[in-house]
Amino acid sequence: MSVRENVRKMKEVSPIVASAGAGMRNEALRLAAAALREHQEEIFEANREDLARAQEAQIAPAVMKRLKFDGHKLADCLAGIDSLISLENPTGKVTLHRQLDEGLVLKRVTVPIGVIGIIFEARPDALVQISCLCIKSGNCAVLKGGKETASTNKVLFGLIEDAAIRAGLPKGCLLQVSAHSEIDELLTCDDCVDLLIPRGSNAFVRYIMDHTRIPVMGHSDGICHTYVDQAADCALAIPILIDAKTQYTAACNSTETLLVHRAIADTFLPKAARELAKAGVKLRGTMEVSEILRKAAALSGDTAKSWISAVQGPADGSVSGNPVNGPVLVPGGFAADDIMGEDDFRKEYLDLILSVRLVDSVEEAAAHINRFGSHHTDCIITKDDDAAQRFMALVDSASVYRNCSTRFADGFRYGFGAEVGISTSKLHARGPVGLDGLVTYKYLLEGSGQIVADYASGKKQFHFRNLEI
Amino acid sequence: MSVRENVRKMKEVSPIVASAGAGMRNEALRLAAAALREHQEEIFEANREDLARAQEAQIAPAVMKRLKFDGHKLADCLAGIDSLISLENPTGKVTLHRQLDEGLVLKRVTVPIGVIGIIFEARPDALVQISCLCIKSGNCAVLKGGKETASTNKVLFGLIEDAAIRAGLPKGCLLQVSAHSEIDELLTCDDCVDLLIPRGSNAFVRYIMDHTRIPVMGHSDGICHTYVDQAADCALAIPILIDAKTQYTAACNSTETLLVHRAIADTFLPKAARELAKAGVKLRGTMEVSEILRKAAALSGDTAKSWISAVQGPADGSVSGNPVNGPVLVPGGFAADDIMGEDDFRKEYLDLILSVRLVDSVEEAAAHINRFGSHHTDCIITKDDDAAQRFMALVDSASVYRNCSTRFADGFRYGFGAEVGISTSKLHARGPVGLDGLVTYKYLLEGSGQIVADYASGKKQFHFRNLEI
Repeated sequence: MSVRENVRKMKEVSPIVASAGAGMRNEALRLAAAALREHQEEIFEANREDLARAQEAQIAPAVMKRLKFDGHKLADCLAGIDSLISLENPTGKVTLHRQLDEGLVLKRVTVPIGVIGIIFEARPDALVQISCLCIKSGNCAVLKGGKETASTNKVLFGLIEDAAIRAGLPKGCLLQVSAHSEIDELLTCDDCVDLLIPRGSNAFVRYIMDHTRIPVMGHSDGICHTYVDQAADCALAIPILIDAKTQYTAACNSTETLLVHRAIADTFLPKAARELAKAGVKLRGTMEVSEILRKAAALSGDTAKSWISAVQGPADGSVSGNPVNGPVLVPGGFAADDIMGEDDFRKEYLDLILSVRLVDSVEEAAAHINRFGSHHTDCIITKDDDAAQRFMALVDSASVYRNCSTRFADGFRYGFGAEVGISTSKLHARGPVGLDGLVTYKYLLEGSGQIVADYASGKKQFHFRNLEI
Repeated sequence: MSVRENVRKMKEVSPIVASAGAGMRNEALRLAAAALREHQEEIFEANREDLARAQEAQIAPAVMKRLKFDGHKLADCLAGIDSLISLENPTGKVTLHRQLDEGLVLKRVTVPIGVIGIIFEARPDALVQISCLCIKSGNCAVLKGGKETASTNKVLFGLIEDAAIRAGLPKGCLLQVSAHSEIDELLTCDDCVDLLIPRGSNAFVRYIMDHTRIPVMGHSDGICHTYVDQAADCALAIPILIDAKTQYTAACNSTETLLVHRAIADTFLPKAARELAKAGVKLRGTMEVSEILRKAAALSGDTAKSWISAVQGPADGSVSGNPVNGPVLVPGGFAADDIMGEDDFRKEYLDLILSVRLVDSVEEAAAHINRFGSHHTDCIITKDDDAAQRFMALVDSASVYRNCSTRFADGFRYGFGAEVGISTSKLHARGPVGLDGLVTYKYLLEGSGQIVADYASGKKQFHFRNLEI
């Protein structure tokens, strides 16, 4: 069958999946976990094939790590499924209950979205996580994983699909597509697919958005900011900043830009620069930032030498020999390349580089973030409640923080159990997307013969009485 | 200034509008209402200009009625603003409150969407309603109304904008564009506009969707169904059906298709056909439906004659002379043109025509609706609780009803105070869209120095404790 035929069939069974009870869906997850455990050798064997092929193709070691599916990854997956089973059923929740008139009662109830297409990176654990999230939320899913883990994916998908059907879900509730050409066919199925979730690079997400009429839940760059306010506790600010920049530089929730209130820049910046340099972070910034650092270095005890050692030395303070490979923070200020102009602040480094700029107020910080950021996650460091409140109100991002690392923006860390991605779109789901983002709602109205003509003529009136939920 | 420049400015002030208190926004609404009242003669005068131009252009009387803005329309608008003021503030609602760990507290709070572009039909009252909904929900709005009411719109917009600014909202929080070419410019502003709401024909909504990267909240056809179950109370079914079909045929929530359980077709269909015919409704349907009606007519007392009178006569039972102009339900069954094939059931008539088909079960009814309908509003007429429950679970529509007219699908009738439209999209907002559909949310996380490294290393653990909302 073609992708289109399969997806049309899936659309037909999706209401049956949607109305399957939470018990059946949890049973499918239990059976899936048991099958993964039971067939682990088969999974590992398939994964060894994938890894051998990847080795031949000379795939980078960092990527190889993601392709690998071993006992540890399996244990993580099983723990994830267990936690998913224990989470509350996201469907069937009544979010509005209103008597419109005698014997005419309106309810708004959460329901699965229906048919979701998910295109994800080459990580076998992602297949397990995503298919289980869809089962738990009553959705049908079309899954397209990275081709580098095709063998592992095939085994994993077969086990999970079989478990779902054994639990009583209808055939065709899950579908795996593997050829890249099948994605293009999937993109044309806007009459059957309710939502696409592409995970991958910005360019890839943009490509999907530009080539389909299906709604896309995507993410754009993660250009996150940490703003150190005039009233910041510097003892908090520096470790937060180091975590936000260095804990996992490739993550979209890593801080890319440091904003500092001008009133504390002379004292805070040199301290922060020294510690960031120790952590291997290279700074870029405006001319003004460069000047402050140059002056601070000149004023400090043994001037140039102490700065270079702080900047380039390892954590134990010993001086590295070669200033050329070291960070750019030198007594003379930034190198010319690291002096930033306006548009440079739109850059997502995903690396040990941090942009720095000074501002005069919370309002200016928020304006910079709203203009140059990606509405993902931004933080203020301050002891001032009023400043924090204004910052959190003015910054137009999915997550706005006070006094903690931007790296907290994540479905697991928010207690959602799992996430399908982080949305920087403002509609439907925003920020880390867990089960709640995989449901929509419908209105149910139960009457006893009411007709609109009676209300239009004034014979009857609505009285709108909210009932208990 | 160009549309792009204006919209960029609007994007900059939108966080200020978003963080303006509910008090300021209600004050803007109060001032707007007062200004409309005070300047009513100016508004009516502008409207007379529009009407004169429309008359010259020989605009259809039905459309003229919509263009008119008189004392009655003004009173409706003022009542609408009053009710909007009394509605709860849709922003600032905490929908999740969770302690992730000691001193690390997550909140999810509703916030305005930001900048919304709304393109609406030539109805001056729509401008008032839409701009006031946006003010109430803390959104900035770009408004483009129909050119037929340009003069009225200009006066109304000026008064409302002035009221907003006098209340303290920033300049540039509202914008009116009037040239059609400006729409195309607006469609390119995907970096500044968060949502587009086009109101109008399907073709127009589709055009907008195909020419912008801005998310669009649109609606497709309203192909609504009423299913008369085996266990239906026929005394309820017929008036409901007549209301659903005839109360306002041009509305998207009018019933276009009648589905009848085969077990009751022989008794129910002839009765329904007779009453529908009295109400001026022309039937179309499958061959089987035609046969049932033909036989019923043949069996009835004075055969052909009584049928024709029932079908074509006015409400008082008198026989009209000319069968040619009457509905097609004749003793010989449907005319050939009215025998329906599969794909005919996708037709939105917006007229006194009703498609009819028989089904064998609730499941078959739901499958027909999911396949041929537009996921808008569908109803079951039944006394059987189990059948109703299955129907409401299986039908994948924004609104699913039992024992009442599909015409109830409307923001006012749901008690939302006002609506910006009815969404047949499944994401973000579904069904009638009131203030709730004009907000999104953001996550606020307040910490006391927490860094992710401590949780990654196992030094600290999340404990996820939900707090009171």
